[in-house]
Amino acid sequence: MFRAVFSVLLVLVATSFAKYIPKTGKRVPQTLSRGWGDQLIWAQTYEEALYWSRSRNKPLLVLFHLEDCPHSQALKKVFSENNELQKILDEDFIVLNLMYETTDKHLSPDGQYVPRIIFVDPSMTVRADITGPYSNRMYAYEPGDIKLLISNMQKAKKLLKSEL
Amino acid sequence: MFRAVFSVLLVLVATSFAKYIPKTGKRVPQTLSRGWGDQLIWAQTYEEALYWSRSRNKPLLVLFHLEDCPHSQALKKVFSENNELQKILDEDFIVLNLMYETTDKHLSPDGQYVPRIIFVDPSMTVRADITGPYSNRMYAYEPGDIKLLISNMQKAKKLLKSEL
Repeated sequence: MFRAVFSVLLVLVATSFAKYIPKTGKRVPQTLSRGWGDQLIWAQTYEEALYWSRSRNKPLLVLFHLEDCPHSQALKKVFSENNELQKILDEDFIVLNLMYETTDKHLSPDGQYVPRIIFVDPSMTVRADITGPYSNRMYAYEPGDIKLLISNMQKAKKLLKSEL
Repeated sequence: MFRAVFSVLLVLVATSFAKYIPKTGKRVPQTLSRGWGDQLIWAQTYEEALYWSRSRNKPLLVLFHLEDCPHSQALKKVFSENNELQKILDEDFIVLNLMYETTDKHLSPDGQYVPRIIFVDPSMTVRADITGPYSNRMYAYEPGDIKLLISNMQKAKKLLKSEL
């Protein structure tokens, strides 16, 4: 009898200290990087990214992607494993990856598709002039286009002159 | 001589396979939960949260906070450790935590401050009627107000009737 009461108490105490676990089992917390560079400091929203870009005077790279898009996933592998690209992004860029479109139409100059990479100057000007190799989807990149992407990042680093 | 060449080669191979590590040292990837409930599935942006809320017909809880705000941090501790609250949020709500304001003024009915909790109905109507206990900051909660917060969550679960 005494042992039974003790056991019930023990269970009660253990339950009250245990952290919440979903019925479907424990989940791995989702990271802001979503696998595109775990060592980079990703902005969460476009508003946040613009604020960082302006205040730190660094260009912004916005990356639109989807988890169930094989083109996005193929690009992600090369993107996340390219140390040169990751280093430049970490040191000279503000980075944001999004799976949902924003309300700002300037971020989809030729439509909404993934994967799509748009550069924004710290002056908050979308650099629609910095494009990938495909004329039908001007801001798309494939895994083989990483060198062009890095060269485009260098272009974005040459900041637009702010108006006097 | 041979061993020296071999060593250099080994270092080269190791470096080329090593993942990028920032000069300041390896970082822990930032999670979308930011400590407010690691087992919850957090939306990244307001647009994403609204989409989930509409499509799953679940109310949305938007939480504004700051990492360097002691009131936010005190609320976070109680919020993340309250299993009843976490379970209801996980099963019946779409959740979003933000450290930067959005461009939508409906999310700041009486100003921008943290911590601030705003409920949004799946019909995309901000529930400005669901308030905390403070008349000067109507959407603020302190750690002692968790019971009121849970009761407000129950209110938010009674969905507004959509227009016919």
